[in-house]
Amino acid sequence: MPAMIDEIHEQPKAVQAVLRDEQKNIESLCRTVKSRDISCVVIVGRGTSDHAATVSKYLFEIMMGIPVALAAPSVLTLYDSRLDFSRCLVIGISQSGQSPDVVEYIAQARAWGGLTVAITNDVSSELASASEHTICCHAGEEKSVATTKTYTATLAACYLFALKYAENERLLEELQRVPDAMAAVMESEEFIQDTAPRYRFMEECFVMARGINLATAHEAALKIQETSYVGARPYSVADFAHGPIAVVHEGLTCFLFAPDGKAYTSVLHMIQTLSQKRAETVVYSNNDEALRRATIGIRMPDKIDELMTPMFYIIPAQMFAYYLSLNKGYNPDRPRGLTKVTITR
Amino acid sequence: MPAMIDEIHEQPKAVQAVLRDEQKNIESLCRTVKSRDISCVVIVGRGTSDHAATVSKYLFEIMMGIPVALAAPSVLTLYDSRLDFSRCLVIGISQSGQSPDVVEYIAQARAWGGLTVAITNDVSSELASASEHTICCHAGEEKSVATTKTYTATLAACYLFALKYAENERLLEELQRVPDAMAAVMESEEFIQDTAPRYRFMEECFVMARGINLATAHEAALKIQETSYVGARPYSVADFAHGPIAVVHEGLTCFLFAPDGKAYTSVLHMIQTLSQKRAETVVYSNNDEALRRATIGIRMPDKIDELMTPMFYIIPAQMFAYYLSLNKGYNPDRPRGLTKVTITR
Repeated sequence: MPAMIDEIHEQPKAVQAVLRDEQKNIESLCRTVKSRDISCVVIVGRGTSDHAATVSKYLFEIMMGIPVALAAPSVLTLYDSRLDFSRCLVIGISQSGQSPDVVEYIAQARAWGGLTVAITNDVSSELASASEHTICCHAGEEKSVATTKTYTATLAACYLFALKYAENERLLEELQRVPDAMAAVMESEEFIQDTAPRYRFMEECFVMARGINLATAHEAALKIQETSYVGARPYSVADFAHGPIAVVHEGLTCFLFAPDGKAYTSVLHMIQTLSQKRAETVVYSNNDEALRRATIGIRMPDKIDELMTPMFYIIPAQMFAYYLSLNKGYNPDRPRGLTKVTITR
Repeated sequence: MPAMIDEIHEQPKAVQAVLRDEQKNIESLCRTVKSRDISCVVIVGRGTSDHAATVSKYLFEIMMGIPVALAAPSVLTLYDSRLDFSRCLVIGISQSGQSPDVVEYIAQARAWGGLTVAITNDVSSELASASEHTICCHAGEEKSVATTKTYTATLAACYLFALKYAENERLLEELQRVPDAMAAVMESEEFIQDTAPRYRFMEECFVMARGINLATAHEAALKIQETSYVGARPYSVADFAHGPIAVVHEGLTCFLFAPDGKAYTSVLHMIQTLSQKRAETVVYSNNDEALRRATIGIRMPDKIDELMTPMFYIIPAQMFAYYLSLNKGYNPDRPRGLTKVTITR
């Protein structure tokens, strides 16, 4: 059996390990950040790590109240520019800790006065050595090229940091409930396995969300691309209405993440618009109305704050990518043309 | 004849108007920015304006040496968060000046201490009223829903600001040569018109670049989507290698922006990889090798700094979208399902 499905199932345990073993380390980091005059956070990552960075952009801005920039690594690595990072917290995310442009960005940011943090699954990696602080993902070895558990473990580290920083006790308690919510999501597996054959001949699709789950849409699209070679295009429902909606036709498949919360109404409105255009909608939601309006509705755990949802809404999408890949006759562990560590040239 | 092609041709004039008429205004803005303790720039825009923001992220970081964040409007407009903008320059971009979430973001950023600037084609718009400073695009009325001249005019305003701020006389001189480079690009029109029928039945494509032209790829993809309903997916060649490359198959069309400069080697490497996979490559470049390796090469003006290229490399891509739309029997001015001002719900 491909490793990807085992690694999907290992996620609650990996997240639990971060929440248990990184408490003290992250509290100490929070004290350091507060002792410095930080007016901006910069996060650097590639691929799946960039999606973890995007969730963190929303989370940090909402929780910490300071602007967050997602780094364009080439500004430093290609254009040799020098940025003033003296009032910046600069976070590098790489599961392997080997992504060369992330390592280089962090090394330069540190040299130019940034407070640097590595989030990585390998605490003896180059990235960890280059950073002042390191947070470990505790995900264990990840064998599948399609990353799953290192993504959610990275998110757990980012959430623990942001909520500790904000001293938000209510959400810190919610965060402790996330591993259970993740475990509950695993119960959708049979339904997803049974539904996947329907998409055997799907050649393209859109994946949409808004707000904190925007990156969930990007990560879900990447998983479908990597494992099943389907042209999956991720969008914010807000941006989708600014152009791409023009290409929607009858039968086009759109995946939508619609947890109850601040972004719900926007996403529901898009589900309705897409239904009118007779598109096929696959909706991940805990809300009856959104599920009822969907072509295929996948029910998600209830009674947990919207801000927590990126950590477990990605799971059914990972499972979907896995079973779609099998239905198309591929090996989801070994996407053609990809390797575990990508060298940016 | 659809207005879009006229508006494409009006771009050198619009850019010239910005460079001529906004000098004093932008010099005064530069003095204000320097008199404040700014450690971060935040830029907010939707759709095409977001692409102008992305070019500016690279440009401002390279020229001003401070981190630039692209805003996630929903952090303020949906999640009601309050950010500390007291050390931020916050720039709102909207051609109409009416994009509601851009207006709201700027109004809130101003209330929370940000130094706010509007870049808009309508100086009596809500966005202009909400901002402390306003820069005008001088593009005249834009009739086509597919925006062209307001994009490059917005870029001209951003370039003039960044280069004046950096007091980079060499690049300020280059900037004055951009309208001529834009005019020279218009000479490709016949070739593009003759080539467009080849793509009559193209149903999907990738559009790629790296570095300062990443947004050129995004904007080119949006133009193709809007006017021709083709599934066009934009990527950084660096990110493309992290997953999406797995879906490339024989005959898949990839558009690549490959001006000589810091990003050139990366893009050339991708052109070679794509050729090995027998993909079809359409390459915009001034470099003989890149043009020779392309299935279709479109020669671009030479001897102008790479940093300036986003302002004129977008033009052949706009023309391509226009002629592709005509070949498919559409009206490029009136994409189905789109309106000039998009309300984000």
